[in-house]
Amino acid sequence: MNFKDYRDFTGSSPEKFFKSSLFRSENLLLGLNCLEPGQSQPEHGHTSQDKFYFVLEGQGEFSVGEESRTLGPGLAAWAPAGLPHGVRNEGDQRLVILVGIAPAPG
Amino acid sequence: MNFKDYRDFTGSSPEKFFKSSLFRSENLLLGLNCLEPGQSQPEHGHTSQDKFYFVLEGQGEFSVGEESRTLGPGLAAWAPAGLPHGVRNEGDQRLVILVGIAPAPG
Repeated sequence: MNFKDYRDFTGSSPEKFFKSSLFRSENLLLGLNCLEPGQSQPEHGHTSQDKFYFVLEGQGEFSVGEESRTLGPGLAAWAPAGLPHGVRNEGDQRLVILVGIAPAPG
Repeated sequence: MNFKDYRDFTGSSPEKFFKSSLFRSENLLLGLNCLEPGQSQPEHGHTSQDKFYFVLEGQGEFSVGEESRTLGPGLAAWAPAGLPHGVRNEGDQRLVILVGIAPAPG
């Protein structure tokens, strides 16, 4: 199945932001992070993986290293390996982010 | 510069579809392919790279291996290493695609 609609992979979880995978190989994981209002992904880093965020819906406060910025639909963030990054949804609607991690974790 | 707006990276070229890069590392190239009406990216494969397409604007006829599908905004295609893939813009507006290739080519 080589074609997918991201809207089929959104969701929510009360305890923690929601993650799903669209496609995955050793080289790349492409998925979604969905954060309800008030949810966050704490700052963390990946030792040997580069990551991008691309906002699809809502808006969030993104931090990458020393920089932080509020991003809405069409804006992207890049976190090279080792650089701490995170995101908080301080808005009033669901934040949906397309996320790519290369190589895939795990 | 870890934050970018994809709209700053769109463009067109009369001879051939337009490509730009948002972010790049050895692990991953994240960029745009912009196809004006009538333009196409002929079928091709990458020997050792996986690739995704994610439609941001317009619509296009995507082929991956034996499958083909018309995709609009929010739809994604996945072409694992070795599988031929391509896209044609048969619509009447610019097709803008977020593209990721892992590892980065070149």
